[in-house]
Amino acid sequence: MSKKITVGVVGAGRIGKLHVSNLKKMDNVRLKTVSDLFADQLEDWFRESGAERLTKNYKELIHDPELDAVFICSSTDTHAEIIKEAAGAGKHIFCEKPVSFSDQETLEVYEAVKSAGVKFQLGFNRRYDRNFRKVKQWVEKKVIGDLHVLKITSRDPNPPSLDYVSRSGGIFMDMTIHDFDMARFISGTEVEEVFVHGAALVNPKLAEWGDVDTAVITLKFANGAMGVIDNSRRAVYGYDQRLEAFGSKGAVHVNNETESKVECWSEEGIKSDNLLHFFLERYNEAFDREVKEFIRAIENDSDIQTTFKDGIMAQRIAEAATASLKSGKPVKVRGLDE
Amino acid sequence: MSKKITVGVVGAGRIGKLHVSNLKKMDNVRLKTVSDLFADQLEDWFRESGAERLTKNYKELIHDPELDAVFICSSTDTHAEIIKEAAGAGKHIFCEKPVSFSDQETLEVYEAVKSAGVKFQLGFNRRYDRNFRKVKQWVEKKVIGDLHVLKITSRDPNPPSLDYVSRSGGIFMDMTIHDFDMARFISGTEVEEVFVHGAALVNPKLAEWGDVDTAVITLKFANGAMGVIDNSRRAVYGYDQRLEAFGSKGAVHVNNETESKVECWSEEGIKSDNLLHFFLERYNEAFDREVKEFIRAIENDSDIQTTFKDGIMAQRIAEAATASLKSGKPVKVRGLDE
Amino acid sequence: MSKKITVGVVGAGRIGKLHVSNLKKMDNVRLKTVSDLFADQLEDWFRESGAERLTKNYKELIHDPELDAVFICSSTDTHAEIIKEAAGAGKHIFCEKPVSFSDQETLEVYEAVKSAGVKFQLGFNRRYDRNFRKVKQWVEKKVIGDLHVLKITSRDPNPPSLDYVSRSGGIFMDMTIHDFDMARFISGTEVEEVFVHGAALVNPKLAEWGDVDTAVITLKFANGAMGVIDNSRRAVYGYDQRLEAFGSKGAVHVNNETESKVECWSEEGIKSDNLLHFFLERYNEAFDREVKEFIRAIENDSDIQTTFKDGIMAQRIAEAATASLKSGKPVKVRGLDE
Amino acid sequence: MSKKITVGVVGAGRIGKLHVSNLKKMDNVRLKTVSDLFADQLEDWFRESGAERLTKNYKELIHDPELDAVFICSSTDTHAEIIKEAAGAGKHIFCEKPVSFSDQETLEVYEAVKSAGVKFQLGFNRRYDRNFRKVKQWVEKKVIGDLHVLKITSRDPNPPSLDYVSRSGGIFMDMTIHDFDMARFISGTEVEEVFVHGAALVNPKLAEWGDVDTAVITLKFANGAMGVIDNSRRAVYGYDQRLEAFGSKGAVHVNNETESKVECWSEEGIKSDNLLHFFLERYNEAFDREVKEFIRAIENDSDIQTTFKDGIMAQRIAEAATASLKSGKPVKVRGLDE
Repeated sequence: MSKKITVGVVGAGRIGKLHVSNLKKMDNVRLKTVSDLFADQLEDWFRESGAERLTKNYKELIHDPELDAVFICSSTDTHAEIIKEAAGAGKHIFCEKPVSFSDQETLEVYEAVKSAGVKFQLGFNRRYDRNFRKVKQWVEKKVIGDLHVLKITSRDPNPPSLDYVSRSGGIFMDMTIHDFDMARFISGTEVEEVFVHGAALVNPKLAEWGDVDTAVITLKFANGAMGVIDNSRRAVYGYDQRLEAFGSKGAVHVNNETESKVECWSEEGIKSDNLLHFFLERYNEAFDREVKEFIRAIENDSDIQTTFKDGIMAQRIAEAATASLKSGKPVKVRGLDE
Repeated sequence: MSKKITVGVVGAGRIGKLHVSNLKKMDNVRLKTVSDLFADQLEDWFRESGAERLTKNYKELIHDPELDAVFICSSTDTHAEIIKEAAGAGKHIFCEKPVSFSDQETLEVYEAVKSAGVKFQLGFNRRYDRNFRKVKQWVEKKVIGDLHVLKITSRDPNPPSLDYVSRSGGIFMDMTIHDFDMARFISGTEVEEVFVHGAALVNPKLAEWGDVDTAVITLKFANGAMGVIDNSRRAVYGYDQRLEAFGSKGAVHVNNETESKVECWSEEGIKSDNLLHFFLERYNEAFDREVKEFIRAIENDSDIQTTFKDGIMAQRIAEAATASLKSGKPVKVRGLDE
Repeated sequence: MSKKITVGVVGAGRIGKLHVSNLKKMDNVRLKTVSDLFADQLEDWFRESGAERLTKNYKELIHDPELDAVFICSSTDTHAEIIKEAAGAGKHIFCEKPVSFSDQETLEVYEAVKSAGVKFQLGFNRRYDRNFRKVKQWVEKKVIGDLHVLKITSRDPNPPSLDYVSRSGGIFMDMTIHDFDMARFISGTEVEEVFVHGAALVNPKLAEWGDVDTAVITLKFANGAMGVIDNSRRAVYGYDQRLEAFGSKGAVHVNNETESKVECWSEEGIKSDNLLHFFLERYNEAFDREVKEFIRAIENDSDIQTTFKDGIMAQRIAEAATASLKSGKPVKVRGLDE
Repeated sequence: MSKKITVGVVGAGRIGKLHVSNLKKMDNVRLKTVSDLFADQLEDWFRESGAERLTKNYKELIHDPELDAVFICSSTDTHAEIIKEAAGAGKHIFCEKPVSFSDQETLEVYEAVKSAGVKFQLGFNRRYDRNFRKVKQWVEKKVIGDLHVLKITSRDPNPPSLDYVSRSGGIFMDMTIHDFDMARFISGTEVEEVFVHGAALVNPKLAEWGDVDTAVITLKFANGAMGVIDNSRRAVYGYDQRLEAFGSKGAVHVNNETESKVECWSEEGIKSDNLLHFFLERYNEAFDREVKEFIRAIENDSDIQTTFKDGIMAQRIAEAATASLKSGKPVKVRGLDE
């Protein structure tokens, strides 16, 4: 086996810890350092983590000459700064979405990454789900002929705290951004225009931040196809993740994953199994696979599949959606060269 | 249109009434007379029935020169006598199953029908169900290659009264006889041997009559394939009617029919619709179709598909099953030439 | 039984013939006269139809003092005139949708019907489908809590001829009008605003008439909920009719009806049964039930469930949708009092 | 963390390698030695295996004082000898099924294990599948009331080689033994009598060994319930593993696991996803979990769930089944005290 890839992880929140546990299982990875602002409270977790060092200071990690790559899992407002530093230090970068809340800042970071020539992968984990990958392949192979309508249903089991929401950049930047990326991924084309109808139906207080928790979003694709996404912050029956690609020769559907294949038939009818609860369960395999792909790209010096551009475009659709919600009108999505 | 077929119905119980309502809708049928021992209590029903006459005396109907055909829907112990009279009078006969509880008597009646040269159809309604018909065709066309295993699940929603059970001839003659016929219909071959494991699990009192309400029945077919039927007199979730034909190139499954295609997703999981309640609902269409086929065979002087022989053989399997239950051993089924 | 209701049918095209065959089976109906411009070509059909008279001239039927009710199944451009005449003659009216292509004309007819005091039912057959009725009841009973999002998928198996399309009033008036009615029926509230994204993806020639064959339509309901309809004129896999009502306590789904419950498992995977082909098969029962309801309302002098107002409102949503398609912007739906 | 459990693996065939890969991932396990008769050919695999030593001689491993536990994954004819040696050396034992082909020998080994006081777990992996575990719990909690009928369908995708079959002890000892164990596991009671109907329908050559590849097996349970297992060595559509527990208050079903949740709707109908191919894919998680349970039982000195007695009883049912196949009659299963 070739030399191991040495990595560090910035931010040991829910996602950071998940990446650590996946990195730990990989034979070709040396998991060296984890940094977190609240490192003191992470001692117990650290002992079982498989990492060699724990620090409060992410800079220590970024400037460590042994490190090949950095995972950036801290809060969104810190991404831009850390990416620039890491790129400057010549580290390959895996970053959670979104890069930033500002298009201007994102573009600056993009330039920094490009000129540093390091690899950069964005954490659009759903692209690595076996179901969506199969649909992507089938759509590419024209199994459904030409794509006419792409439908995505994406509903969370529970709304986040109001505190979280107030810092999230709004539902489109925080939650729908995954669906926007999925729309681009499956369709293989760009979104040109967005129209949103949204409301705060789960928690009316969200309206105070100008945010919504329920939305229907119409997409106009560059190749003439159309799309629709429907979101809710609370589906009481669990994490609802479905997709339908309809075309001239048929349709492909992704149904929900369930906890088991057990059905109960009783006087009250036929009851199927519950949906997998939330993203950690539903996309468990996908989280593992995206990390493997990133490490493999470094090992083989091959192309990253989920690029910085994917991040920029998903952000721009989210911005257009936010503008459409405010204006009540369809809004064009800016292309990358504008 | 050609001359109408004039019919009479003996016995206006649940099934008799059902046939009457189906006959009433047919343009090419004149529904003349219905006879029932309790005709007095049927006045209200009769007025809406579409029949012209109601009588207590079935002989009046059998010897009516205007009648082309007779439906025999009275209790099983009267079938043999009425069939012989009707055949003697040259009437075509549609008879509910079974012909009788005695093989000897059934064979006598068979001879009478043959020598009279009238058409005779047995009420194995399930053969006319669109699902089982499709499976029959697929098995014939070798869509599943050679048949290896045929599985039938057949469960009633509620057990009949003990009074009914005591006169029913036992579960195999009363209930499983439909499944035995289905096994012959789908496999296109004869059953050679039967082994039964049964018990009175729903109502232990049945044991006093030597009857059971739960059974697993293994079948050995003449062509080398094997079969298994499982029965229960009470499935709390509804009328359970499934079938699976497994062969060298795949399998065909008949799933249950449901009341609707509505699903409810809630905190308690995913709930599908209830099964259709019982045979009147589940085989509603099949009952209609079997009557149409009978009338058509008379009109066109064409062959009857569900023959007297089908009735004899199903009865003989039921007898073998009863004997296996008693002896605890596998029992051969007598062929028709013995 | 009380006196029979005597009816006539204007127009013996596909739908007219269907109503005739359903009326023929009803004990409490006397099917007297059918009129059609091409009566000469209908002699064969007429002999089996159960109707007493066939004429070219619908006026003969409308002014027949024996008739209680008239079914108007002629082409849309003749509806307004015939309704007014029938209402003037005091006949109860069952009319296929839409009443007319012009809101002004529809309102005039509405006044005529109101002042005549006759019963008027519109042919929104899907309201009588057992699946949608169950969903309607569940939504009313708040089984899903408050309605948040209503989703309707409605796709035809094959596009109509260009000739038909050119006279149809456009996809929203011709096809989506059923979905607009369903949206009002299930939600129990009015549609306030519509936004359409549509394109001629199946047959680009439609663009010459300003029409489309593929559309995603966002609806804003008066009670704060939102809706989305997606249409296609050609789903190669059959007539796709699904609905999902999502709310604060769960969701209800209507899945497609299939030809049978047979599944085939082979080397190529698991294949379920095909969808029912088109509306005659899929809504067969619903067509029967809507006619029964109409006759019952006349017999009992009870309220009609699918009213003239339902027709007006569905038409106005269709108009708004047409306007949105043209302008590329969301369009308000006019309320009935404007 | 407490001291690691040190283990060795005897036999690095398909299953041995699988256990090695699962053991390698466990933090609390030190995977020291692997032995295999063909160790020379395993060098490449060994380098990635995570094991410290590879040897031809299993005795080296059994007498290593550092080892706490031994996994016995060699061919069945070697199990008895190795178990006795390992028990004599005081090692905890995980053994693949069956213990041996001879009841006499199995009992001897049982005594050896008991007197050594070591832990012993049998490789009935399916007990650790999340689906069957859920059913087990529900049956115990009487969710379905009293168990009346237990049905197991178990079909392999492809028959093994004739060479393998000739050394396998016959289908009941080799393949159905898993289903016999499942029957005992789910029902929570003993099997008292077995009746088999079997034939060599997939490969008639099997008949030369007195073996079959297709079978329907009826079970009589001690608590009055009944069971039926149907087996085939070749289901062209994949590894078919279903179970249904039917009782006085309803039924629980385990459906097949599929490769994904993707459906394709086309002109040819609705196609669902393929079944998981074979046991390595289908019971992947269960294999992992059974090993974890074994290690945990050693760590905590807690009871083993899949005991030696489970192995003996499953073997005795297999013997009775073999006898029933030969005699064509039902055969009693010997209890453990006989």
